[in-house]
Amino acid sequence: MFQGIKIPTKENIINAFGRIRPYINETPVLTSQTINKITGSELFFKCENFQKGGAFKYRGATNAVLKLDKQLAANGVCTHSSGNHAQALALAARINGLSAYIVMPENAPQVKVNAVKEYGAQITFCKPTLQAREETLAEIKQKTGAAVIHPYNNPDVIEGQATCLFEMNQQINFHPDIVICPVGGGGLLSGTLLTAKYFLTDSKVIAAEPEMANDAWKSLKANRFIPSDNPQTIADGLKTSLGTLTWPLIQQNVTDIFTTSEQSIIETMYLVWERMKIIIEPSSAVALAVVINNRPFFTGKRVAVIFSGGNVDLKHLPWN
Amino acid sequence: MFQGIKIPTKENIINAFGRIRPYINETPVLTSQTINKITGSELFFKCENFQKGGAFKYRGATNAVLKLDKQLAANGVCTHSSGNHAQALALAARINGLSAYIVMPENAPQVKVNAVKEYGAQITFCKPTLQAREETLAEIKQKTGAAVIHPYNNPDVIEGQATCLFEMNQQINFHPDIVICPVGGGGLLSGTLLTAKYFLTDSKVIAAEPEMANDAWKSLKANRFIPSDNPQTIADGLKTSLGTLTWPLIQQNVTDIFTTSEQSIIETMYLVWERMKIIIEPSSAVALAVVINNRPFFTGKRVAVIFSGGNVDLKHLPWN
Repeated sequence: MFQGIKIPTKENIINAFGRIRPYINETPVLTSQTINKITGSELFFKCENFQKGGAFKYRGATNAVLKLDKQLAANGVCTHSSGNHAQALALAARINGLSAYIVMPENAPQVKVNAVKEYGAQITFCKPTLQAREETLAEIKQKTGAAVIHPYNNPDVIEGQATCLFEMNQQINFHPDIVICPVGGGGLLSGTLLTAKYFLTDSKVIAAEPEMANDAWKSLKANRFIPSDNPQTIADGLKTSLGTLTWPLIQQNVTDIFTTSEQSIIETMYLVWERMKIIIEPSSAVALAVVINNRPFFTGKRVAVIFSGGNVDLKHLPWN
Repeated sequence: MFQGIKIPTKENIINAFGRIRPYINETPVLTSQTINKITGSELFFKCENFQKGGAFKYRGATNAVLKLDKQLAANGVCTHSSGNHAQALALAARINGLSAYIVMPENAPQVKVNAVKEYGAQITFCKPTLQAREETLAEIKQKTGAAVIHPYNNPDVIEGQATCLFEMNQQINFHPDIVICPVGGGGLLSGTLLTAKYFLTDSKVIAAEPEMANDAWKSLKANRFIPSDNPQTIADGLKTSLGTLTWPLIQQNVTDIFTTSEQSIIETMYLVWERMKIIIEPSSAVALAVVINNRPFFTGKRVAVIFSGGNVDLKHLPWN
């Protein structure tokens, strides 16, 4: 199901960007003097909350759908996802005239479930564990013959996510000292690490993770893969464990992983909404929260912060 | 107190833009395919929610402060405002090293009161009527000797607000068929009408107003100035009545005024937050709500929609 361990090359990323560019939004890079003052560093926010489907996931899903062999694609595509990849794949499939079958954990936010339905995909719910997701997906695949597009453990998806920092690098005229990127399953982080390795050799990449879903941090510190088990964090996009493809990429290339508390994630999300007037989801806030809570590490630095998405249930906000 | 009836000229607006440009944010013009589909028209959103102080008001306040005679400015500036002009003047004063004294109605949103305090201004509260505001302001002026910067009935403020559409006209490469602009006291609308008259002669300007604070609509239909009296609308920025300077400008130049319900304002605000991932305040939503509710009028047109601001109490949202 995982198409083998094939690390995207420099040329793969350049080609992926050319392939998906007509379909994706070029998302803006924003700055905030207020937040620069708070952090003591110069921050550049890559705003994937303005991406189609509301998150960076649309890059990877679109690249994977466009690279599918026509025969393979005939029965549609399927995946499991807690939300943003589900929306992204449903939208990418619809735009390309394919059927989409999505396995979602039964605790997925209602607003994400509704969006997936709206994009015309068929949803099957399962228990919120990696095992249940993968078993349910295997059943769907057998029943429909749809091609599996894994949310992160797929080189075509990683290539697509790599275009986020690649695009940002074309928008700004310098290499940031540090790139900070949230980590859940590790698709965005893997893509970001590869783009940095190939195109921004003088930039460090730091991953940001919730303390309550710190499987990547634990894995890095223990130097072996440690999966998470049904973690509870408000950053619902970061609950998933790393994959067999993303873990070694991260282990070999990431400078460090910093974690942050639930309270800090909520406060940071509120700060961004109030001061920047943009809607980011908790997973995005994790990256900035790490900068705010590790001020000495970032002081005086130019930092690229990846805001991964903006899909939030507006009727259930964490500060109400 | 109102510096006489002096209509800003074409040259005044060009000069105002040059004067305030180093101090203001160039706010983006955004589009949304989803909302275009809903309305059947092509919409271009001028996003003053990204302006300093969170609203277009900073343009007018900055222009007025920069144009003040040095002797007049020595004792600081004062005004009355339900919120956004207060924040804007407090910030413009602080940046130019002046004291600011602000009269606010006692029902002003707490989040706006806090922002004004944070910018270092001194606040005096009064009853939420135009008479109480003006009387309290007169007292403050007498006590402090500060120069009054009226929130809208001031040609320097109107010049500043005129730069919003002027800037937008430089950002887009066509003249919209229709410009739609919310109306409260009429400062932004007056500036917008003058810019359209001088620089976009082929564009119609439509004003948008809450049904629950429809003094401008009533005045236009009756062909005489009818003030509002403590109106209740969620669009707190649009509660004020027109002024002696803004009313004749509007009467002579506006194509029409459309009104919209409270429910529609809330639904439109939710739509923008959910789909565009940007935070607008209810007053901004009024403009788009009018487009959504008058579909035949706008169908097939290119429409410039002015999002006037984004200052919202995130802990008290109307859909919770």
